[in-house]
Amino acid sequence: MADLLRSPLAPDSFPALPPIDGVRVGAAETGIRYKGRPDLFVAECRPGSTIGGALTRSLTRSAPVDWCARQLAHGRVRAIVANAGNANAFTGRLGDEAVAATVKAAAAAVGCAAEEVFVASTGVIGEPLPYPALTAALPAAVPALAPGRWTEAAAAIMTTDTFPKGATATAEIGGRRVTINGIAKGSGMIAPDMATMLAFLFTDAAIPAPALDRLAKAAVDRSFNSITVDSDTSTSDTVLVAASGAAGNAPAEGDALAGFATALDAVMIDLARQVVADGEGATKFITIAVTGAESAAAARRIGLAIGNSPLVKTAIAGEDANWGRIVMAVGKSGERADRDRLAIRIGGVLVAAEGRRVDGFDEAPVARHIKGRQIQIDVDVGVGTGSATVWTCDLTKRYIDINAGYRS
Amino acid sequence: MADLLRSPLAPDSFPALPPIDGVRVGAAETGIRYKGRPDLFVAECRPGSTIGGALTRSLTRSAPVDWCARQLAHGRVRAIVANAGNANAFTGRLGDEAVAATVKAAAAAVGCAAEEVFVASTGVIGEPLPYPALTAALPAAVPALAPGRWTEAAAAIMTTDTFPKGATATAEIGGRRVTINGIAKGSGMIAPDMATMLAFLFTDAAIPAPALDRLAKAAVDRSFNSITVDSDTSTSDTVLVAASGAAGNAPAEGDALAGFATALDAVMIDLARQVVADGEGATKFITIAVTGAESAAAARRIGLAIGNSPLVKTAIAGEDANWGRIVMAVGKSGERADRDRLAIRIGGVLVAAEGRRVDGFDEAPVARHIKGRQIQIDVDVGVGTGSATVWTCDLTKRYIDINAGYRS
Repeated sequence: MADLLRSPLAPDSFPALPPIDGVRVGAAETGIRYKGRPDLFVAECRPGSTIGGALTRSLTRSAPVDWCARQLAHGRVRAIVANAGNANAFTGRLGDEAVAATVKAAAAAVGCAAEEVFVASTGVIGEPLPYPALTAALPAAVPALAPGRWTEAAAAIMTTDTFPKGATATAEIGGRRVTINGIAKGSGMIAPDMATMLAFLFTDAAIPAPALDRLAKAAVDRSFNSITVDSDTSTSDTVLVAASGAAGNAPAEGDALAGFATALDAVMIDLARQVVADGEGATKFITIAVTGAESAAAARRIGLAIGNSPLVKTAIAGEDANWGRIVMAVGKSGERADRDRLAIRIGGVLVAAEGRRVDGFDEAPVARHIKGRQIQIDVDVGVGTGSATVWTCDLTKRYIDINAGYRS
Repeated sequence: MADLLRSPLAPDSFPALPPIDGVRVGAAETGIRYKGRPDLFVAECRPGSTIGGALTRSLTRSAPVDWCARQLAHGRVRAIVANAGNANAFTGRLGDEAVAATVKAAAAAVGCAAEEVFVASTGVIGEPLPYPALTAALPAAVPALAPGRWTEAAAAIMTTDTFPKGATATAEIGGRRVTINGIAKGSGMIAPDMATMLAFLFTDAAIPAPALDRLAKAAVDRSFNSITVDSDTSTSDTVLVAASGAAGNAPAEGDALAGFATALDAVMIDLARQVVADGEGATKFITIAVTGAESAAAARRIGLAIGNSPLVKTAIAGEDANWGRIVMAVGKSGERADRDRLAIRIGGVLVAAEGRRVDGFDEAPVARHIKGRQIQIDVDVGVGTGSATVWTCDLTKRYIDINAGYRS
């Protein structure tokens, strides 16, 4: 396995996450794959807590994702359990058995119904999950949960991540201040096997499950669905948002939730950007802002076509402002664009407009920009008012190192 | 620029391509980008020749592709002109001027209408094409064309290709023997800039343009549209099939063309496989056969999802039979698959079936297979009878070398 140097794009430190009323978190060691480090995340939410979220659209999704999809329908949560090192994906009937046993043990430890337990797994695909190690750890882990163990919680779900990821924000609902905390893991492609991306968010706000689910899915579109490291989609991606209601805000709908929605977006975008900053082998953080598209969804697809292009990503790794490859990526996106009105800026400098390179183009300021860590690409495709921002990283030889040899 | 070592997957030698009655080919030097080597391919077809083909679906397609799209509608060809080193893409009004001037010069040299001239360009995007070098070369190039200059023709369209690509086959139409020759260039991502893929095929058969176009597009789906090196789509991809009619076969439609269609498929698949064998940095040739899909198109999309996955390609580069990544790629394809009936074979050995790894799986024979040059992956997705075969190569650090640094 490649050594896990801290990403050059990592933040200086883990942020200070405040306690969330009605939520206790913590971690434990199961030894399933990693030795001498916590690899099990557990959260307990007070009775009456609601939940929403988004799950991978993979058709080969894992057994835990199957379980979460069924339980999200009723929107009640008391516990979340996530292990790192084994994805419990493509494990057949044994996979469902592992989920059932884990859920039963967690429900017993917390004192709740099985349907109120959510599970997630990340790691190697196709290996049976040795779940007795999980069920054995839960009875001691639950009493040890505490309001302030966020750093341990974020570290417990890491696989090949090089730093733990957390974010926090506050908002007001009906004059009452509420807090949102989130932790995430991913992405690189994650040794041992997959770009499994997990994120768990918690708030003390009181939000009915249907509204929470709607807000969560919208925020996921603008955050985790707007990032890419290498275009591969995991069998296990899971984003869950749990609301304890302990803040005691009055029930709110629609506009009264606007501030909360903005804060939820901010936390998810912060976490999503941290996932990109930990992209396997990444040395440059790339922001791609697309405007002038037919819709926000079209703009996001164009941005992802640019962000997924190996040619664009290798050019940036080589510090080459090769804008012709951006033109190519727009063209292959399948979305409407007007070649003769296309405009491209790199580092704020207009490079191409009206279907060709600008007259008297001076590459020097662009060349300076591309030697930095933060790369900004703005593309206007000239057909509408839809816009979106996508985040990605460069593609380096270290990505190949990390993914070509770990199993041997 | 990276040095152009011959691909380890290259064939031993260029095949012996016989003359095609009614077709003369050749090459010339323009010095537009490459010095001291032919970089201009020219073909002349006898009066009455028909043409069909397929062009890139990129929305930022090049000026030559725009021109060919208009001329394919009438189906008549007398000349094909292709230059290497500059794609004449995203070049605005200057790009159209370059096409018009090239077409005019070729029409004058051949003695035909402008509409009977087809053009293609491959190389860097966004640089104006210095077309006077092209128009100056044509008057001497056309008289020097000859029936036997196929090797020179194939070499003239190379960019970062490490070997020239050609293929030939024969068929019978109404008892008359006809021949098909083809040449192609690509793919890696091609220094200087793009995975531009060009292929030109010629036959002495007499085939009406609509039938030729239909057969060409069907063959392209089973060949060039079934390969991938790195998922990036060029602004310039062009496949043209010209038929001189000199073989004097009787007009044929439907079943009478079955033998010709099979031969056309064979030539295109041969060329497409050579393009993959010259994939940038490739060390392994990967054949992915998908069965049990809803349709042939669905099977091809599943195959391409596997073939485009950086995780699958880096695993094979690392000689790791990491079948969990194949499961992941099937899941992200968006096509129907039954996770619990999915079966995967590597090198003919059943690895996974019925939603999990086979009992008592012995990895040794699979590990031996994956150390070879030719990798075979068979996937049955368990929902229908659609099948397709896709060809790709592994993803190595040399791909990054080739694409990250050449412009500096």
